[in-house]
Amino acid sequence: METKRPTIPAAEEILGGYFPVLDHGFVSLVDYMGSDEDVERAARVSYGFGTRKVSQTRGLVRYLRRHRHTTPSEMVELKFHCAMPMFVARQWIRHRTASVNELSARYSLMPLLFYTPPQDQFALQSRSNNQGREGGAPPEVYREAVERWERLRKDAGGAYAWLLREDVARELARIDLPVSTYTQWYWKIDLHNLLHFLSLRVDPRAQWEIQQYARVIAGMVKRVAPLSFEAWVDYDLESRPLTRAEREVLSRLVTADADGVRARDGAAVGADGLAAAGLSKREIEELAEKLRAPDHQDFELDLSAMKSAEEIAKKMYEAVPGSFE
Amino acid sequence: METKRPTIPAAEEILGGYFPVLDHGFVSLVDYMGSDEDVERAARVSYGFGTRKVSQTRGLVRYLRRHRHTTPSEMVELKFHCAMPMFVARQWIRHRTASVNELSARYSLMPLLFYTPPQDQFALQSRSNNQGREGGAPPEVYREAVERWERLRKDAGGAYAWLLREDVARELARIDLPVSTYTQWYWKIDLHNLLHFLSLRVDPRAQWEIQQYARVIAGMVKRVAPLSFEAWVDYDLESRPLTRAEREVLSRLVTADADGVRARDGAAVGADGLAAAGLSKREIEELAEKLRAPDHQDFELDLSAMKSAEEIAKKMYEAVPGSFE
Amino acid sequence: METKRPTIPAAEEILGGYFPVLDHGFVSLVDYMGSDEDVERAARVSYGFGTRKVSQTRGLVRYLRRHRHTTPSEMVELKFHCAMPMFVARQWIRHRTASVNELSARYSLMPLLFYTPPQDQFALQSRSNNQGREGGAPPEVYREAVERWERLRKDAGGAYAWLLREDVARELARIDLPVSTYTQWYWKIDLHNLLHFLSLRVDPRAQWEIQQYARVIAGMVKRVAPLSFEAWVDYDLESRPLTRAEREVLSRLVTADADGVRARDGAAVGADGLAAAGLSKREIEELAEKLRAPDHQDFELDLSAMKSAEEIAKKMYEAVPGSFE
Amino acid sequence: METKRPTIPAAEEILGGYFPVLDHGFVSLVDYMGSDEDVERAARVSYGFGTRKVSQTRGLVRYLRRHRHTTPSEMVELKFHCAMPMFVARQWIRHRTASVNELSARYSLMPLLFYTPPQDQFALQSRSNNQGREGGAPPEVYREAVERWERLRKDAGGAYAWLLREDVARELARIDLPVSTYTQWYWKIDLHNLLHFLSLRVDPRAQWEIQQYARVIAGMVKRVAPLSFEAWVDYDLESRPLTRAEREVLSRLVTADADGVRARDGAAVGADGLAAAGLSKREIEELAEKLRAPDHQDFELDLSAMKSAEEIAKKMYEAVPGSFE
Repeated sequence: METKRPTIPAAEEILGGYFPVLDHGFVSLVDYMGSDEDVERAARVSYGFGTRKVSQTRGLVRYLRRHRHTTPSEMVELKFHCAMPMFVARQWIRHRTASVNELSARYSLMPLLFYTPPQDQFALQSRSNNQGREGGAPPEVYREAVERWERLRKDAGGAYAWLLREDVARELARIDLPVSTYTQWYWKIDLHNLLHFLSLRVDPRAQWEIQQYARVIAGMVKRVAPLSFEAWVDYDLESRPLTRAEREVLSRLVTADADGVRARDGAAVGADGLAAAGLSKREIEELAEKLRAPDHQDFELDLSAMKSAEEIAKKMYEAVPGSFE
Repeated sequence: METKRPTIPAAEEILGGYFPVLDHGFVSLVDYMGSDEDVERAARVSYGFGTRKVSQTRGLVRYLRRHRHTTPSEMVELKFHCAMPMFVARQWIRHRTASVNELSARYSLMPLLFYTPPQDQFALQSRSNNQGREGGAPPEVYREAVERWERLRKDAGGAYAWLLREDVARELARIDLPVSTYTQWYWKIDLHNLLHFLSLRVDPRAQWEIQQYARVIAGMVKRVAPLSFEAWVDYDLESRPLTRAEREVLSRLVTADADGVRARDGAAVGADGLAAAGLSKREIEELAEKLRAPDHQDFELDLSAMKSAEEIAKKMYEAVPGSFE
Repeated sequence: METKRPTIPAAEEILGGYFPVLDHGFVSLVDYMGSDEDVERAARVSYGFGTRKVSQTRGLVRYLRRHRHTTPSEMVELKFHCAMPMFVARQWIRHRTASVNELSARYSLMPLLFYTPPQDQFALQSRSNNQGREGGAPPEVYREAVERWERLRKDAGGAYAWLLREDVARELARIDLPVSTYTQWYWKIDLHNLLHFLSLRVDPRAQWEIQQYARVIAGMVKRVAPLSFEAWVDYDLESRPLTRAEREVLSRLVTADADGVRARDGAAVGADGLAAAGLSKREIEELAEKLRAPDHQDFELDLSAMKSAEEIAKKMYEAVPGSFE
Repeated sequence: METKRPTIPAAEEILGGYFPVLDHGFVSLVDYMGSDEDVERAARVSYGFGTRKVSQTRGLVRYLRRHRHTTPSEMVELKFHCAMPMFVARQWIRHRTASVNELSARYSLMPLLFYTPPQDQFALQSRSNNQGREGGAPPEVYREAVERWERLRKDAGGAYAWLLREDVARELARIDLPVSTYTQWYWKIDLHNLLHFLSLRVDPRAQWEIQQYARVIAGMVKRVAPLSFEAWVDYDLESRPLTRAEREVLSRLVTADADGVRARDGAAVGADGLAAAGLSKREIEELAEKLRAPDHQDFELDLSAMKSAEEIAKKMYEAVPGSFE
């Protein structure tokens, strides 16, 4: 189709393609509005007449992000079709500034697809992070867990199919499906709020399963708005906040001016000094992480994994309890 | 405690009390800000100096609601502690203009409490409403459903407890709990958005289970802001929209002016006439419902059902898999 | 440009064209995402597998709007470039669920364009509506008002230009510009929230000046999503709420069932009866309005008025105080 | 009044008192819901059963803020009555997640109070910051500016009063009031969004006039939720983001582990090295600021400045054009 709207070839290349996530999930970019140039265009209303020209979209986009002028990023919008386990959906939906249309289990028959964690992600409760996982669990525990999951899903799916056969209301038939059951939705969000979502969900402290979705979506954003994406990596994702106390401590170790930064010879602050500056033990560990050189993270999409809508629809369709079409 | 803040005796009477909903759920009003007088106070900034006095808060509150001046209602805020099955929580959370803190199954051990529909609510799929339920299901189907539910929950609860014993991460241990499992949250919302929530969730087309929560909350709102509540019943809950085509049809049947309304003798519009005016078959049924005298709905709280926080906490505590404190 | 995104010829026809509003303002549709079919597509995720096919987008779109299933309408997004007097901007900005980038008077030099009401809109304070206008004001008052406005704007513009020449900070130089000064912004909003904006701002109780903007935007929506637009006219704009008391009264005058609606011979409720049913004097007047046949409102855009971006930019540029480029 | 709600003596002490801001403005805390303990209470739903006790509200509040778990802060709500020049109101209203009821110039007569900048704030356009002010302007320019402002306001106020005497609609009579005219509103916002507002508006890059409002509000927050306030100062207000490139540079100058932080002897990165790491000239200046020891900012309210509602109301009343009550 012909359009006068801003159009981005790298986004068009993946538009409507389905990227697998986890064992039965997916993310597809189904529509977008605008790109980096539209961030600049909106911001330049703010600059308007009588202001010096900023020579490059990149410079402006980076300045805006560094200084938290985030409203121009709201001028870009992306729409996705996604399928994920319900426990992932329940984390995802907490991001309120977005539009969602979810498959309704009151109207519809649910495809009986369930998430099974891969063995290398089957881990013990973290000791250092009360909400996370850490280290591997014994293989025999994994084997038994898989057996139990398979049995539970067979029984829950069987009960669901039986209740539907008895014509029990769908909204009741579904109440014992496990939260590992896949659901799906359309999700539309602006670039500012999407990058905030990514900051929280690409983070290693997010549950590993939702991280996998965030990483694929990050690869899509990189195609729609590459300059905004780069600025987000530099100023958000790989940025770390220096707290008031940490700034006070660092100012004793380092000097900085327009000519550069220099270490103060022999300057050091030990654990006691850090405690005196107000840092808790946990904050000292956090400071060490902040002062390490950042990692390079790659969010390139693997185009060879892209599937068609038809292929995905067929798989979903075949997973619906059979005798009810 | 002494306070200079607006204080409402009828709200204080139930503050911090827990009202049971469904078999293991509850709603408790834990805090509130403002009342009907604060709606007026905020709106009167809009009237300010030089404007005639409106003699009664009631008159103003009713005028505001009738004319959809809803922003003054945002000046009243309510906070609740609630427990509900996860499938109810998933409907509830779609109301985005609210604050929520939910029990996290990544950090916490979940109480093993599951919702079982009562027999008189165990119904067949509705024929007239694709998403609802209708009529009774056979008692033997209910009996078998209950048996299957009990078995599923025993197995799912057992797997959960076993995974916790093996020290598997909580965020993984919980993935096969059914959506009938009770969760809980703090929920804070302003009066305008709460009344909108109630309009949608007290409605017979909402799933019966969430209606039960909405009805208890309605009884609480009636205590916090009785005039706003009355205006909501009159102008929202028991109001019905007359569509463009329906107004055109009714104008042929009825005349109205400052002296009253009168039927036009012999005036009638048959099914064909309604179709010609653009009404679908379904809209004709809807019109008949709109023109019936409205029901009276009672949302009075049953104070004798109110329980203490300690009693509820004990019940929840005892339902957590036992060996992990 | 070529795109795989949903593309709407009627929208492309006006994309980037500028439509004049008031004496110096404008609205331009600069981008859009989706159309009626995307409302259906999002809603059908909700219907998904195992549900009867709804044969027409129109039927579904109308059903959704009639039953206030508004979330699928959020899946369509529109972006506008607008210029309006500041007092209009201050009413407009109250619609919070939208993205805005406004020309900043801290960074930029403001074009010295001011709004002058046309003589036929120069009216007296309304007696029936405390916030509106009503009837014509004497021509000699209009003449003097115009003289005073011209003098004030000359002085305010002169002071602004003088302060800029003295290099006083722009954020201070602008503080005595009148609220009739034109500002401009990019405004992006989803279809659901836009239709809500239109319902409030096309309304005769809105200030006449903002109505003019709403009417032009309505003409643009009609091109982007014609079925949603038609449903909005039928079920929102030309719909009226029948209150609880009004339903009770009407049920005495009219009967309705699947075969049609019929007036009850001789049935009437006089002013006393209406008062007894709880209607205030003002509500009785409102009821008469509701029971009149609705007007037909035309929101067709006048394509011959459309101007190019260059033409508009030139006009704005020339209105900036001259010596500061 | 007696209440079972959480009550905070330091907040009660100022409740309903009016604190002057600028020449004719004010901020008053008129209501609040909750405090630091309610942040903890909401967050502990997230911890719930089976989790270790966190011994102190302070520790939890600080942990939550440091890790951007901001939703529990939404559980505290504050309500203010404020008066400010319209140009300040226009900056303020951009914070969308709040409730506002503003004095309507369509209904009401506006008090004729205008903001005059004090001489020490009458400054030139900043060279380093395109949107700010910098250095002093000559006294004779200030004198002439004040004279021009006084004349403009006399004329604009005179025209407003004359139009009202001629009974012209108020919504038209006000269109040439300058943006320095004071307006007022009720403003209600939760603690999370309020702290975000303060971060942006206490900042030296915000216009000086809105900073004065933010500083008074900060003093009020300090009384309502002192632990959240302290955490905000330490982890937001006086925190600075270290970007990806800055972390990379600093990791060459400093080492850190659980035992403390140490400068690397002789380590330095000059301007060229910083440029090679990707820092622009402006970013190098920003880095120097980040590495300076933070300032101590005091937001204590001056209780001796507090005025009564009656005193303020009288002043506003007397400023309304006289002959129209």
